[in-house]
Amino acid sequence: MKLEKLVGDRFRERPSDCIVDSHALMVRGGYMKYVANGIFSSYMPLKRVTRKIEQIIREEMDAIDGQEVQFPVVMPASLWQESGRYESIGKEMVRFHDRNESPLVLGMTHEEAAVQLVREYGQSYTKYPFMVYQIQTKFRDEARPRAGLICVREFTMKDAYSFHTSQADLEAYYDTCHKAYERIYARVGLPEVLSVASDSGMMGGSISHEFMLLTPIGEDSIAICTECDYRANMEAAECILHNKRDAVSEELTLVHTPNIHTIEEICAFLHCDEQTSCKAVVYQRNADDHYIVLFIRGDLEVNETKLTNHLGYDIHPAMITEESGLHAGYIGPVNLSGDFTVLYDRSLENRNNLSCGANVCEYHYTGLDMRRDVTGAEYHDFAKIQEGGICPHCGKPAITISRGIEVGNIFQLGTKYTKSMNMTYIDSNGETQYPMMGCYGIGVGRLAASICEAHHDDHGPIWPLAVAPWQVHLCAVRADDAAVRVYADTLYEELQSKGLEVIYDDRKLSAGVMFSDADLLGVPFRVIVSPRNIKQNIVEIVSRDKRFSVNVSMDMAANEVLKIVSEAK
Amino acid sequence: MKLEKLVGDRFRERPSDCIVDSHALMVRGGYMKYVANGIFSSYMPLKRVTRKIEQIIREEMDAIDGQEVQFPVVMPASLWQESGRYESIGKEMVRFHDRNESPLVLGMTHEEAAVQLVREYGQSYTKYPFMVYQIQTKFRDEARPRAGLICVREFTMKDAYSFHTSQADLEAYYDTCHKAYERIYARVGLPEVLSVASDSGMMGGSISHEFMLLTPIGEDSIAICTECDYRANMEAAECILHNKRDAVSEELTLVHTPNIHTIEEICAFLHCDEQTSCKAVVYQRNADDHYIVLFIRGDLEVNETKLTNHLGYDIHPAMITEESGLHAGYIGPVNLSGDFTVLYDRSLENRNNLSCGANVCEYHYTGLDMRRDVTGAEYHDFAKIQEGGICPHCGKPAITISRGIEVGNIFQLGTKYTKSMNMTYIDSNGETQYPMMGCYGIGVGRLAASICEAHHDDHGPIWPLAVAPWQVHLCAVRADDAAVRVYADTLYEELQSKGLEVIYDDRKLSAGVMFSDADLLGVPFRVIVSPRNIKQNIVEIVSRDKRFSVNVSMDMAANEVLKIVSEAK
Repeated sequence: MKLEKLVGDRFRERPSDCIVDSHALMVRGGYMKYVANGIFSSYMPLKRVTRKIEQIIREEMDAIDGQEVQFPVVMPASLWQESGRYESIGKEMVRFHDRNESPLVLGMTHEEAAVQLVREYGQSYTKYPFMVYQIQTKFRDEARPRAGLICVREFTMKDAYSFHTSQADLEAYYDTCHKAYERIYARVGLPEVLSVASDSGMMGGSISHEFMLLTPIGEDSIAICTECDYRANMEAAECILHNKRDAVSEELTLVHTPNIHTIEEICAFLHCDEQTSCKAVVYQRNADDHYIVLFIRGDLEVNETKLTNHLGYDIHPAMITEESGLHAGYIGPVNLSGDFTVLYDRSLENRNNLSCGANVCEYHYTGLDMRRDVTGAEYHDFAKIQEGGICPHCGKPAITISRGIEVGNIFQLGTKYTKSMNMTYIDSNGETQYPMMGCYGIGVGRLAASICEAHHDDHGPIWPLAVAPWQVHLCAVRADDAAVRVYADTLYEELQSKGLEVIYDDRKLSAGVMFSDADLLGVPFRVIVSPRNIKQNIVEIVSRDKRFSVNVSMDMAANEVLKIVSEAK
Repeated sequence: MKLEKLVGDRFRERPSDCIVDSHALMVRGGYMKYVANGIFSSYMPLKRVTRKIEQIIREEMDAIDGQEVQFPVVMPASLWQESGRYESIGKEMVRFHDRNESPLVLGMTHEEAAVQLVREYGQSYTKYPFMVYQIQTKFRDEARPRAGLICVREFTMKDAYSFHTSQADLEAYYDTCHKAYERIYARVGLPEVLSVASDSGMMGGSISHEFMLLTPIGEDSIAICTECDYRANMEAAECILHNKRDAVSEELTLVHTPNIHTIEEICAFLHCDEQTSCKAVVYQRNADDHYIVLFIRGDLEVNETKLTNHLGYDIHPAMITEESGLHAGYIGPVNLSGDFTVLYDRSLENRNNLSCGANVCEYHYTGLDMRRDVTGAEYHDFAKIQEGGICPHCGKPAITISRGIEVGNIFQLGTKYTKSMNMTYIDSNGETQYPMMGCYGIGVGRLAASICEAHHDDHGPIWPLAVAPWQVHLCAVRADDAAVRVYADTLYEELQSKGLEVIYDDRKLSAGVMFSDADLLGVPFRVIVSPRNIKQNIVEIVSRDKRFSVNVSMDMAANEVLKIVSEAK
């Protein structure tokens, strides 16, 4: 391919609307074009990268007995009504009607379609286990698409679904798939991707893992123990606390606290630590604005994922009205009356000598004793794990918090979908059973962007060879020079005839422009033909990451390039 | 791949809802599953067929300098408002709103997206010509999906868009692409596909061709001249007539014609030929039910595509009410008054001594002379070409009508989209110009079904090697026999190690069941290991189409299979 014919513009300036580097470089390098919020077209270089990623994923899915199939992008609502998700999923699922007013949805995941595809096939235990997967376009109407290809609305995803007759078989295949994922990330050039325990969210099921590329631009927070192998998405990480109780409980005492509204203000006023205060955090149920009042230790934050999972419905931070009966800034667990759901975080269990709101404007209590003053409270884990917190696995105070991009996820779904959609099989004893399911996703475009995040410099992406749009970038500097032209044209043909993927820049431009374009295309090996090199009877071969540079004689150049590329594989 | 693990059911009975053979065989063979009207999932065998078709298409598009890109499935309405098609396309385009009430559409074709992608890139004449293409999912809300994969709502399509600075360059590339299409059809096993001149429909532009597989189940009618190379979709075929005029015009005479309603009845009543009658065919404009009255020779049918193109708006057959002022069965060109659009087909030009309605109930005229009695009429071509009609190319009465499936189309679009979407370039003289476009489509699933239509017997598809789901179907008859098991397992490994794609049936089933499953999978070469063959030290190799059968010695079997497959390529 001649670079001169490559459709797409490349430029030097970082676009002002690009927050993350991969987005900026992919726009600057002519990889992608904005079409609408969270919707992009891909130019050829990105399409070549994603096709290579897809092929690596396909090979690894085939290697674990996956069968490539295809589900529809557009599905009837009835399929999602069977599982109950037509109602339970929010606005991120696009719903519309066809010309006959039949309700349809755009696929954002395909558990329902997978069950529909294999429901008749899997009626006997002898057919199990099996796994089907597809690589297809999905649409999820995200509220806040961001960061280029990291968080979009339309995306290409590999999604796989496995079916089993026992939890043990599901777990064994889940591990097999976990290993396949590790191979995929290693092959695409991201061996550093970590798997972390995760929350299963709308997928249902119990055990799930996310594969995370650690990077400050990630939108997930991950708790990692420096003392053992514990790793979890903060959403799913248990918050372990060793609650201390003073030997003597003070009396519950009403204190006048005028103009005090925040936890910092009350602690300063009372000369106490946030750890000895009982804070109220208030939410409302999305459906009817019913209030949920959660009490938690003053220095901790609420993990809303855990709270939502506990409640079983969606919530939002409360707007506290005068009619609610709640007194913002003065809410406490004693004498709180009204139609609220009241919850207690484990951080308060057994604690005494705490401060808290008195449910009267401008008054707080001190000397709160949870055992004595809040009888019958049940305590659950609603707190966010903290930097330096206790590891739920090894028990040491060795938790660190990092940011990460989720580049894949795997779920043990159990019988959630097979039960709701009535998929059954007859087991070896003639009994009717529900099969267990697993599901396994990788977003292709997000993975491409993550590779770029992990492998780039200021000048462009540095694509790993396995996913690079081309393997060799041939630059004919001063192609108007007859010797350069003749030799470079010949070398281009020779390299291609050896099966190498070559992008050939023979434009009559300065070496500076050529090289900055080459940096933006990020091809691993650059081969430079120039009048000066020809005088010395050499060709320069330079790696995109600048770690490698060699001059080879002109007559050996094609063979040397082939050798270098082959060894780099 | 072991057949035992292949997800999907195969069965003998033809499903009652399958009209065409490809649909019935693909359902019976476990290729596809109904999800909703015109929406299917694909099992692995079909996915393997379509992926091979896609790869052949990709290679041929790359060979004519196509650049693979990707456009979104979901597009903003604004893009389609630019071209005017948001309004002009009917219900076949799905329109919906996202969570922010922004209007979106599902892509049914991507001219707008292509212009959006390259509008900035193509600002200088030096960038031309170029072509971009994608292979992507599309959704078209067809009113009547039918015939399995032949006419669906969701489908995978290769669509390509070329851009040029002159009509001559567009035409040259159009020819190049025409030849690439011929290679594609030949490679997938349909060298018999014909290109025919077609109507451009909603795409706009002037010259276009459809690629047709002739088959009685096709929904298109194609006019083919047996004397020259003229071929056209009936929608686009000009109807040539040599109108005759009697030497003497009779007088226009009112005739009482009670209870006469059809053209057959009036001709029988008047003892005249349908060719000497002037028939009225009435339509209404979709938008406001305005009447269109078209007069045409009694024996001819109206080509509604030509009529719609002439009118520039959509129409439907009329419901003639009493208030309309029209008298159904008695409508004629003389003394017709009312707010109608009145049109005349060329078949009536210069004709005399015709019968026609008198615009009075139960009365007709005889002796109609178009020149004398219908002054100022303009005549256009609105008639369907007929079997035995005159060829518009060679002028001989040698037209035959065949049915066909459209398996691809190519269009010269001119500047329709670049003008409406304001895509311009600066030419070599510094002048601003609109580039010319071509577009080129192939539906992948429909092509797969068409290959099956052309290549099947009662027992299943007979896939051409280049698109078959596997190359070799290895049957171990009586796999419970130790000798069979050991030899067949070894042969399976050997064949795979030679790079052959093998589906291996080692189920403990009767040869009858095995072979009928093999027929349904349609793999070109079947390799049979059985106790009887082993006794004779042979392996049978049989082609799916039964034309080829050979016994080879066991120790040479793998090499022989490789040789046979290689020679068949």
